[in-house]
Amino acid sequence: MTTCATSTSCAAPTNSAASAGRPVVLTGDRATGPLHLGHYAGSLRNRLALQETHDQYLLLADSQALTDNAGDIAKVRDAVMEIALDYLAVGVDPAKSTICLQSQLPALAELSMLYLNFVTVARLERNPTIKDEIRARGFGRDIPAGFLCYPAAQAADITAFRATLVPVGADQAPLIEQSNEIVRRINATAGVPVLPEAEALIPAAGRLPGIDGRNKMSKSSGNAIPLSATPEQIAAAVRAMFTDPQHLRAADPGRVEGNVVFAFLDAFDPDAAEVARLKEHYQRGGLGDALLKRRLDDLLQGLLAPIRARRAALARDPGHIRAVIRQGVQRARAITGQTRDEVFGALGLFQP
Amino acid sequence: MTTCATSTSCAAPTNSAASAGRPVVLTGDRATGPLHLGHYAGSLRNRLALQETHDQYLLLADSQALTDNAGDIAKVRDAVMEIALDYLAVGVDPAKSTICLQSQLPALAELSMLYLNFVTVARLERNPTIKDEIRARGFGRDIPAGFLCYPAAQAADITAFRATLVPVGADQAPLIEQSNEIVRRINATAGVPVLPEAEALIPAAGRLPGIDGRNKMSKSSGNAIPLSATPEQIAAAVRAMFTDPQHLRAADPGRVEGNVVFAFLDAFDPDAAEVARLKEHYQRGGLGDALLKRRLDDLLQGLLAPIRARRAALARDPGHIRAVIRQGVQRARAITGQTRDEVFGALGLFQP
Repeated sequence: MTTCATSTSCAAPTNSAASAGRPVVLTGDRATGPLHLGHYAGSLRNRLALQETHDQYLLLADSQALTDNAGDIAKVRDAVMEIALDYLAVGVDPAKSTICLQSQLPALAELSMLYLNFVTVARLERNPTIKDEIRARGFGRDIPAGFLCYPAAQAADITAFRATLVPVGADQAPLIEQSNEIVRRINATAGVPVLPEAEALIPAAGRLPGIDGRNKMSKSSGNAIPLSATPEQIAAAVRAMFTDPQHLRAADPGRVEGNVVFAFLDAFDPDAAEVARLKEHYQRGGLGDALLKRRLDDLLQGLLAPIRARRAALARDPGHIRAVIRQGVQRARAITGQTRDEVFGALGLFQP
Repeated sequence: MTTCATSTSCAAPTNSAASAGRPVVLTGDRATGPLHLGHYAGSLRNRLALQETHDQYLLLADSQALTDNAGDIAKVRDAVMEIALDYLAVGVDPAKSTICLQSQLPALAELSMLYLNFVTVARLERNPTIKDEIRARGFGRDIPAGFLCYPAAQAADITAFRATLVPVGADQAPLIEQSNEIVRRINATAGVPVLPEAEALIPAAGRLPGIDGRNKMSKSSGNAIPLSATPEQIAAAVRAMFTDPQHLRAADPGRVEGNVVFAFLDAFDPDAAEVARLKEHYQRGGLGDALLKRRLDDLLQGLLAPIRARRAALARDPGHIRAVIRQGVQRARAITGQTRDEVFGALGLFQP
């Protein structure tokens, strides 16, 4: 599936991002705050690979962030710039990946509203991801309607770009299934396969834990290392990192499972054989936390120093970031608008 | 409140429809079928008056019709043309009223999706109009999400045009209250009164009954007289019209309450004094149904003949109707897009 099979607007983009023949991948981030090492391990670095082989669209998901942050729009607004900085700092290339802003793409809202007619309230309420997230947020009965409806909005995001591949965490897979259900209903109603189904791309590695080892890394849990962390913040985070509370002396045998330092080494150390050797040594006894933490600190300092430097340089020119987003929006408007027209046309809505 | 207080795009319209200083009225019809005499009595003829004194927007509400007709899009599509013909046939002047198509106005979907974050699922479920309509349609648990959400979409319609006056039936008044609730939340969040509240304009006369006298007139009840009715259809409808089943002979006293012929005379006979005299005579006894029905048939033939003739002439040139809708869409896009920009800006969303 390509973006441009029937699109006349695909002539407009002048760089390789919309080159024909590549599979389309849609991903992005809810605009609720700057990104951290958990995002880097779980998705950002995959995007660097994907942009070489796919038509990749990165959605700065401010509209979706509003579904549970309507009371703090300043946070959502500021996060858009922070996340765009993070993207560029880690090496996302706007000539290869289209970075675009959800609230600036009317076709996404138009398709969302359309799709809401093809899914029942009961089906939305049964969605396991939504059920979990409603519970996690403590909404009770006061669920914002936009939050309940966001699976339809996500289906709009995916289909508007004609994405066939959507990188998501395992807990988000039901949302892709929901999107495909809507696709099948739209195609059945239209009588032609106007939209492609999408596949979830679930990373082999699990989520990176936070430094406290209690939950996955997240800003709201206060256990995250942001991509913009200073050398001191990195060092402090590594020092505070949860290991094995029973491993009181270096000579004692230690546990690897649940040990955050090893989880980080698994995620970031390029020398897997050495990490395996260190694990074995740690479990046997005789390997202290201090040595491991020094290794990890070196690794993270080396990983984040160039990202932090690029991020700081980019942050000095917000006009450039805005221009990157504007160009992405322009490209994304052409593609999503085309899909909107094709879907409305295939369904047989009145065309004046 | 005017459409153009802060709008730069208001320079574009070249006719009086967007003339500054007039209050804005939004009305329209769900695109589910051609209009009938019930619409004429309850709303269409009021619009002829309103277009002389107000900035009037008439929404061909195809998107809203999809919320409970996603399985019959052809009906919705065809109804758009039929209703536009009805509007022009009764005397709506596209130079005075803006006739526009809901699905062609992306800002309505954008505002709808935004507003869904400012209303809870519980609040939507409590809406008396929605509760009644869910019952009437027998949706049970299988309510399309779009149907539950349509009060937010209606708030988008009203506010996008900055309408301060919305003609609705008494049963629809809760929807205006729901819209105003959303307006207050948006304004409170923005910290500025970016949107005006609207007032329901509820017609003094109740709804016109169907010819069977059992329900209000509606196509689905099979008790309607369409605006395009032929002379024979009008005559047959008047003959079949429910009067007083106890009024077997002209000499008997008859009942006026629930008598459809009198309801129609109340609605359409310009000589109210004569209708009052006829009622009194009927109740006293000595006035037969045949005489009343002849009077009503004459009235309706006289009312509908020119509408039918204009409608038939207009129907021969669908290209003209499409052009009228296109012009209305263009005008409405400028105004609704401006409101969308103002709302997103006032709320402080990221502007690239």
